[in-house]
Amino acid sequence: MQKITRSLVQKNTTRIVLVVLDGLGGLPVNGKSELEAAHTPNLDALARTSACGLHVPVALGITPGSGPGHLSLFGYDPVEFQIGRGILEALGLGMEIRKTDVALRCNYATIEDGIIGDRRAGRIPTDQSRILTEKLQAAVSRIGDAEVAFAPGMEHRFAVRFRFPDSLPPDAARINDTDPQKEGLAPAPPVGETPSAQHVAQVADAFISRVSSVLKNEKKANYALLRGFSVMPHLLTFQEAYGLTSLAVAVYPMYRGIAKLIGMEAPEVSGDVADELAFLKDKFDDHDFFFMHVKKVDSYGEDGNFEEKKKRIEEFDVLLPRILELRPDVLIITGDHSTPALMKGHSWHPVPALLKSPYVFGGLCSGFSERECFRGELGIFPTTSLMTLALANAGRLRKFGA
Amino acid sequence: MQKITRSLVQKNTTRIVLVVLDGLGGLPVNGKSELEAAHTPNLDALARTSACGLHVPVALGITPGSGPGHLSLFGYDPVEFQIGRGILEALGLGMEIRKTDVALRCNYATIEDGIIGDRRAGRIPTDQSRILTEKLQAAVSRIGDAEVAFAPGMEHRFAVRFRFPDSLPPDAARINDTDPQKEGLAPAPPVGETPSAQHVAQVADAFISRVSSVLKNEKKANYALLRGFSVMPHLLTFQEAYGLTSLAVAVYPMYRGIAKLIGMEAPEVSGDVADELAFLKDKFDDHDFFFMHVKKVDSYGEDGNFEEKKKRIEEFDVLLPRILELRPDVLIITGDHSTPALMKGHSWHPVPALLKSPYVFGGLCSGFSERECFRGELGIFPTTSLMTLALANAGRLRKFGA
Repeated sequence: MQKITRSLVQKNTTRIVLVVLDGLGGLPVNGKSELEAAHTPNLDALARTSACGLHVPVALGITPGSGPGHLSLFGYDPVEFQIGRGILEALGLGMEIRKTDVALRCNYATIEDGIIGDRRAGRIPTDQSRILTEKLQAAVSRIGDAEVAFAPGMEHRFAVRFRFPDSLPPDAARINDTDPQKEGLAPAPPVGETPSAQHVAQVADAFISRVSSVLKNEKKANYALLRGFSVMPHLLTFQEAYGLTSLAVAVYPMYRGIAKLIGMEAPEVSGDVADELAFLKDKFDDHDFFFMHVKKVDSYGEDGNFEEKKKRIEEFDVLLPRILELRPDVLIITGDHSTPALMKGHSWHPVPALLKSPYVFGGLCSGFSERECFRGELGIFPTTSLMTLALANAGRLRKFGA
Repeated sequence: MQKITRSLVQKNTTRIVLVVLDGLGGLPVNGKSELEAAHTPNLDALARTSACGLHVPVALGITPGSGPGHLSLFGYDPVEFQIGRGILEALGLGMEIRKTDVALRCNYATIEDGIIGDRRAGRIPTDQSRILTEKLQAAVSRIGDAEVAFAPGMEHRFAVRFRFPDSLPPDAARINDTDPQKEGLAPAPPVGETPSAQHVAQVADAFISRVSSVLKNEKKANYALLRGFSVMPHLLTFQEAYGLTSLAVAVYPMYRGIAKLIGMEAPEVSGDVADELAFLKDKFDDHDFFFMHVKKVDSYGEDGNFEEKKKRIEEFDVLLPRILELRPDVLIITGDHSTPALMKGHSWHPVPALLKSPYVFGGLCSGFSERECFRGELGIFPTTSLMTLALANAGRLRKFGA
C-alpha cells in the first residue's frame, strides 16, 4: 500500500498535524468509556465537523505494542517491519540507533559455578543497578571492532548497543537469547545463525566475559543475561516515503526513538502537554508534518485508573484550541492503540480517530468517543491507511491512473 | 478475489443492471453534497428498500482515474491491471484496441535543427490539427509489419495505433517517451527495454521519420512527440470471469473502449440519457448484464459546477422509473469515483452505491446520499467486491465449500 501512496506523492506547502493520545481507546465502566465520561467540549465540537472513524493497528483482535502501533500510524506495515525488542528497549532508554548497530536487552543476574542463581538479581533496586551500569561503561567501551554503549534501566534491566564500523545486514542479529529462562541452569552461549550474526555473537561472547570480570566481586549481581538481539529495521524514511519533512514532539525517549527510526527530527522536549504545544508552535513554520505524542493517557490506563485517564483527556481538551490556532491544513487526533482502564493494559479494540480537513462530510457524530466514531464516515479501517488519508486531504497525492 | 468468485459461477436467466453515474460522489457545499441537495424522490425511495453503502475503488485516500475506477467496478483489481496511457487515449478517441496493438499518445510539436521549439505546437487549434492528422493517415498507413492508424484529438493531441500481425507480450511497449519534457532539448529516440519492445521501437523510430517528412513544410507543427507506449492489459473477459453476456450502453467512446477491453459488446450510442435508456430497453432481452454509463454528472463536477451536477442527478432521477419498469433482478446505481464540485476533480472519497434485489435488508437509509449510505448495510467496502455482490444477489454464485 505504501508503495502506491509513495508513487503518487506531490509536494505543496500544506501542514499536517498528527496528535497521538497514547492508549486513547477505552471500554465502558458504569456504562461509559473514559472518552465518553470525559468532559471534552472542544474535541466534541471538532468531531462534529470532522471525518471520524476507528482504526485497527495490526489486525482485528490483535493487541499492538507501542512500536507496531506507531509504525502503523506512520503508514508502515507493522507485520512486515518488526522492531526488535533490543532496539525498542534501547530507544526507550534514550539511546540513538543507527544502521551500524546491534541493540540488546540485558538483565543483571547472579551466577555460581556456571549456574544461574537469580535471573533478575533479586530485582536489584534501580539506584544500585545504575551504579553497576556506570561501572561497566567505564570499564567496557570497545570490544573488537564494536563500540559498546550502556543505558541503565529500571531495577535489573539495562540496554547495550554494539556499534560496528559499517551498516549491518538484516540478519546480523539472528542470535539466541543467553537467558535460560529458568533458574538452576547454565546460560546459553550466544550463537549466530548467519556469518554476519556469528561475528556479532563473538563480540557478545567476549562482552559476557568482560562484564563477568568487572562484576565478579559484586554481591547483588555478578552476571548479565542477554536477550532480544536486534538491528534497526530497514525502513524508508518519512521523507523518502511521503516527501514530508517531519518533527516529533514527544517527552518520552521511546517515542522520539521510533520517530528517529524513520528519519523524523526528534529533539529532546521536557515538561507537560502545554510545553509540548509551545514547542510545536515555535517550530510550526519549519516542517510539513508534526507528530505530537501525549503519554499520560496511556500510563493511567495501564494503572487501571479510569478517573485519571479521563482527566488527562480533559486536560488535552482544554489545550486543543492552541493547536487549532496554528491552522494546520490537516489535523488528526487519535491514539496508537486502546488502553482500557478496565483491562489495565493495551487492548485490541479499534482506536477512535478524527480527521479535520476542508474535504470531509462531518455531521455524522455528535461528539468524540468510540461509540460516536462507529457512526463516522471513515468507518473501521486499517491504521496504515491513515497517512494516505492525511496526504490526500492535504492535496499531496496525484490521481492513480487516467 | 475474482478467482474465488469465478470458481463459483453458475448460470441462470437473471438480469443485472449496473448504472454508473460518473463521478457521482461529492462533498458538502453550504452543508449539503450534490446528491444531498438534489431533489431525487425516486432514488430516495429506492435507497429505502435497497442495500446501501460506499465503495473504495483503489484504496483509502487514493484518487482513481476513470480507467481504474471502471475496472474496479467490473471486479478487476485496478492495481494488478493498469491500463496504459496510450491505450486509454486511443480508447477515448474511439479506437478499437486488440491484443496485437501498441497504442500511444502523440503531441504535435515544432522542431528546428533537431531542437524542440514548442512541445505543443502553440496548442494548435483542433480544426487545424485534425487536417494534419488526416494528411498523416493518408501518407502513413503501414510501417514494416505494422498497420498504422491515427485518431485526431483536441488541439495538439492525437493517438496512434500500431497493429502487428500477432498478439504481443506484456513487455512489448516498454519504450521511453520521446518527449524531452522541456523545450530547447532534442527529442529522445525511442528505445525498447526488451527484444519485443525493441522491434516496436524500430517501428516507432521509422514512424517519426515518416511523420517528419510529411510535416516538414508545415508552419504550425512539423514534428510529433510520442508518449505512453502501451499494450492492452491481459484481462479475462467478462464472459470468462462471470459467465455473463454483457452490453455497454455508453455515449462516450472511452467508456465503450474500457468495456470492450473486457469483451463487452459496446455499440455506438448517441444522444442523451433518455436515448441510452431507450437503447437499454431495446436490448434488454439479449444479454445478462448491462453497464449503463452517464457521463455528464462527472463533467460538471470537474468544472466545479455544483448546480449543474445536481441537475444531472435530478435528470437521472426522473428517468429512473424506466429502468425499474424493465424489472432487472439486480440493479446497482453508483459511480466510478467521486468528483466533488468543491474540488473540481476526481477525489478519493468512497462512492455511494445502492443495490436493489429481493435479498437485502433495506430500511437503514432514509434516502440516497453519501451520509445516508454510511448508515447502510454494505458499509464501506472495496469496489472490486461489487460484482461478486451483484452475482450473489442474482443467484449466480454457488456455495463456497461444503
